[in-house]
Amino acid sequence: MTHPVPADLARFAEALAERAATETLPRFRDAADAQNKTPDRGYDPVTEADRQAERALRAAVADRFPDHAFLGEEDGASGGASPWRWVVDPVDGTRSFVCGVPVWSTLIALEYEGVPVHGVIDQPVLGQRWTGGMDNPALLNGDPARTSGCERLEDARLMITDIRTAPEGYLSESQAGRLAALWRRCRLLRQGLDSFAFGLVASGRMDLVVEAGLHWHDIAAVIPVVEAAGGTVTDWQGERPREGWDGTCIAASSLALAEAARAVMTA
Amino acid sequence: MTHPVPADLARFAEALAERAATETLPRFRDAADAQNKTPDRGYDPVTEADRQAERALRAAVADRFPDHAFLGEEDGASGGASPWRWVVDPVDGTRSFVCGVPVWSTLIALEYEGVPVHGVIDQPVLGQRWTGGMDNPALLNGDPARTSGCERLEDARLMITDIRTAPEGYLSESQAGRLAALWRRCRLLRQGLDSFAFGLVASGRMDLVVEAGLHWHDIAAVIPVVEAAGGTVTDWQGERPREGWDGTCIAASSLALAEAARAVMTA
Repeated sequence: MTHPVPADLARFAEALAERAATETLPRFRDAADAQNKTPDRGYDPVTEADRQAERALRAAVADRFPDHAFLGEEDGASGGASPWRWVVDPVDGTRSFVCGVPVWSTLIALEYEGVPVHGVIDQPVLGQRWTGGMDNPALLNGDPARTSGCERLEDARLMITDIRTAPEGYLSESQAGRLAALWRRCRLLRQGLDSFAFGLVASGRMDLVVEAGLHWHDIAAVIPVVEAAGGTVTDWQGERPREGWDGTCIAASSLALAEAARAVMTA
Repeated sequence: MTHPVPADLARFAEALAERAATETLPRFRDAADAQNKTPDRGYDPVTEADRQAERALRAAVADRFPDHAFLGEEDGASGGASPWRWVVDPVDGTRSFVCGVPVWSTLIALEYEGVPVHGVIDQPVLGQRWTGGMDNPALLNGDPARTSGCERLEDARLMITDIRTAPEGYLSESQAGRLAALWRRCRLLRQGLDSFAFGLVASGRMDLVVEAGLHWHDIAAVIPVVEAAGGTVTDWQGERPREGWDGTCIAASSLALAEAARAVMTA
């Protein structure tokens, strides 16, 4: 099922993050001017950042590893029949990007036969890059990253990107009710951090992320990073997410905390 | 009522922001290690950052302008009988600070006879500092800052720090209902940004901030900055906030947007 991650692929994952930043960073920094000049086109900078970064990464993979497959948020699947596949979300956290808040991330996952074995969570404005996976330790900017080890909801710093129900939020009424039961038991709740929060869990700054409505490109990269840091990532039923799963997620600093959260989410 | 702001006081406001950063920045960066070692004391780094920064700023004002008054979030009022008063919140956005998310701010207001005439919003991790007031243009890192000019709710990027009701949030049921009516009409909602969002309004990256439950030290510094950038700051009734007001706030990129938001909040 899995396969050792060659060192050149782990290095290439970071090179992809750097390539993406050359497309995203200038557009993030210029967005204020762009929006002042064209107030009706406030979303353009991020759309362009997403599209150009994904194109650049797709081309870089095709050039270096033409048999590898590629899945991007914007333009879907391409590439060859290799068991290796790259899954990319060039700008996860579009709303933050648009508003000038540097908690969006570039997500790069490397899969072997559908299992994410290595991941990169990159925030180039802050200069924070988490890497790690099955054969590589979790690192934040090259230094070891470990989860907090927090085991109790009462101590947990929780992130949920949006507690609102559809259509403005992602949640059903039933999901929102369970999440309210959860945040009422936690030490604090942060919102709006998208996948940046998984990096914070990997380095012990947060303890718990619970989400619904995720896509595969939102989570494929974070699973190997959080697991390598000593944490755990499952759906709300306790199963490891795979492509096509139900879009729910519990990422926790410890198995005990994950189980405590799951008990609330399935009550 | 008001008084021209001497250039040396405007410069001193920035010197205070730099002094505060020497207390807050190292504690922000070290907090991950501190929390891994002592998981039961996750709040200590920010408490210590708040306390030490406020002490340093209080001492700096007493040393340079011994007749000036001083109001801090942590230790209250001190100083002389001058009409000049400094109002300081060393770390606004404690929850973000604790979680390693650099959207907390140091807020420094200069009042003359109770009216904020100059303000600083400083985010030292990002290196973003907004300054401005009645006699000084709004600047972000020395460059002119202007609001977006956005006039319609449908185009507005809205920030509300927490849409939850008490006790976990700050809102009454009635306030939460009005805010829901508001965010349903806006282009997008961001949460959890605290006073950093006022800086984003001043530089055109967001358009509208609506809050309740604020303290005077949360808002005194942002009023002069947002107004100097072409925006407007009132309470939900349309009055300019003064110490002891009801804690509500509408900060908007334009008068038209402020009036549209007020119509929803008072419906």
